[in-house]
Amino acid sequence: MYEYTRPVYYYETDKMGVVHHSNYIRWLEEARMFFFDDNNLAYVETEGFGVLCPITELDTKFKYPARYGDIFTVRLELTKYTGVRFSVNYIIINQNGDLLLEGNSCHAFIDKDFKPVSLARAIPERHELMKKLPVAK
Amino acid sequence: MYEYTRPVYYYETDKMGVVHHSNYIRWLEEARMFFFDDNNLAYVETEGFGVLCPITELDTKFKYPARYGDIFTVRLELTKYTGVRFSVNYIIINQNGDLLLEGNSCHAFIDKDFKPVSLARAIPERHELMKKLPVAK
Amino acid sequence: MYEYTRPVYYYETDKMGVVHHSNYIRWLEEARMFFFDDNNLAYVETEGFGVLCPITELDTKFKYPARYGDIFTVRLELTKYTGVRFSVNYIIINQNGDLLLEGNSCHAFIDKDFKPVSLARAIPERHELMKKLPVAK
Amino acid sequence: MYEYTRPVYYYETDKMGVVHHSNYIRWLEEARMFFFDDNNLAYVETEGFGVLCPITELDTKFKYPARYGDIFTVRLELTKYTGVRFSVNYIIINQNGDLLLEGNSCHAFIDKDFKPVSLARAIPERHELMKKLPVAK
Repeated sequence: MYEYTRPVYYYETDKMGVVHHSNYIRWLEEARMFFFDDNNLAYVETEGFGVLCPITELDTKFKYPARYGDIFTVRLELTKYTGVRFSVNYIIINQNGDLLLEGNSCHAFIDKDFKPVSLARAIPERHELMKKLPVAK
Repeated sequence: MYEYTRPVYYYETDKMGVVHHSNYIRWLEEARMFFFDDNNLAYVETEGFGVLCPITELDTKFKYPARYGDIFTVRLELTKYTGVRFSVNYIIINQNGDLLLEGNSCHAFIDKDFKPVSLARAIPERHELMKKLPVAK
Repeated sequence: MYEYTRPVYYYETDKMGVVHHSNYIRWLEEARMFFFDDNNLAYVETEGFGVLCPITELDTKFKYPARYGDIFTVRLELTKYTGVRFSVNYIIINQNGDLLLEGNSCHAFIDKDFKPVSLARAIPERHELMKKLPVAK
Repeated sequence: MYEYTRPVYYYETDKMGVVHHSNYIRWLEEARMFFFDDNNLAYVETEGFGVLCPITELDTKFKYPARYGDIFTVRLELTKYTGVRFSVNYIIINQNGDLLLEGNSCHAFIDKDFKPVSLARAIPERHELMKKLPVAK
């Protein structure tokens, strides 16, 4: 399971005194970036090949608030990869181990005209790397 | 069904040339604000009574990208209200009627210590107003 | 003087209980969008011609906090237009007339390679429209 | 001179393909947080003492765009500390040494009613620590 950790930024909080829920969604994206970077699949390069990878689905349960001063950890794992789509599972915890969020997201590969593409055909060597990533049951 | 419409802001787009998915989540919050404002249940006043109302769950399917220049409409309807929690259903469409997003969110009433509260007990007159809102099957 | 008004969104506040300063900067951009839209100079079309218009300078004084529940107004006026660059002056006030912000920004026209361009040469008819806009002393 | 470095996040870019200018402003805040944290002046604790520290002025020149894939560094130094206010100077560079931004900000200490306070009187030991920080000419 991949881990990404950083402190909460002040501008991520709202007047409830806790992190605004939309920012958790951004943390998941940060974690995906570092996960793919660390697996030779940097997203900036994927886009360089003309392949985009938008989110198509997102389900999240917000369990406990993150506060300024907290250091959060996103734990993620791949749950599916079909060559055309992939899914990711997440939890976010704080420095005390409190569970902040559970969620999962689905993503699809598309070309610059927003048409679905097979990564296997578009960037075969990236497809091979994707296939080697562990997939949780 | 309640409708909220506005143009896309430039800062809401990302380098994919379309609106970043985290901003759709913020549009849903904007729509809820105007919905409750228009029903004499302004959230700013609810907080004034010491009752907060965080999101506890969010499920979204991203169907089609919003672009700068687009004017989007959030359509929302209440799907449940228990006195302690409520749920909302959403779609977002653009000016051409393209479906951008389908989703739903759950929310809970809590006090300033983040303990669950019954709106009926905390702010009875708001509870009465909430009960009068139409609830979709 | 052009005016743009809307309510504060919840997600624009921070744990200080007021709007985070970075969001004022975004409000200025919103106001510019509506200003140019209303003067037949919609920025989405300018980009369609291959001309971008990034900000090059921004000076702001934050005078008074905006809060959730407030309705703010950005007042802006052009202070310079050279065919290559333009400058804008702003104030933001709230519904009580309190002055929230004073500021000004500078912008330059560039092409898709981020090279400076003359709007007069790149899109002459837009240059003509720009020249007709009132410029404050 | 204090340095803070991290990669650009995808959601910080806009449809121009570069980082939206409002996000540079947020990076300055991140850098201030780490600077004060590293000097035993964690802002989260300052707020714990009932002292807030909003920005009162911000001047920035945007020199060169940051892109997704870039790793930026904020360099900051204190330029004034009066016990009631302080000022900070910044530059942001990318991994190639390109200058992205030059700027400075002013900040004031206030209490929870948004009245100015002297840090010396409100939290004397923090005032002592602030006085020991190097101040650039």
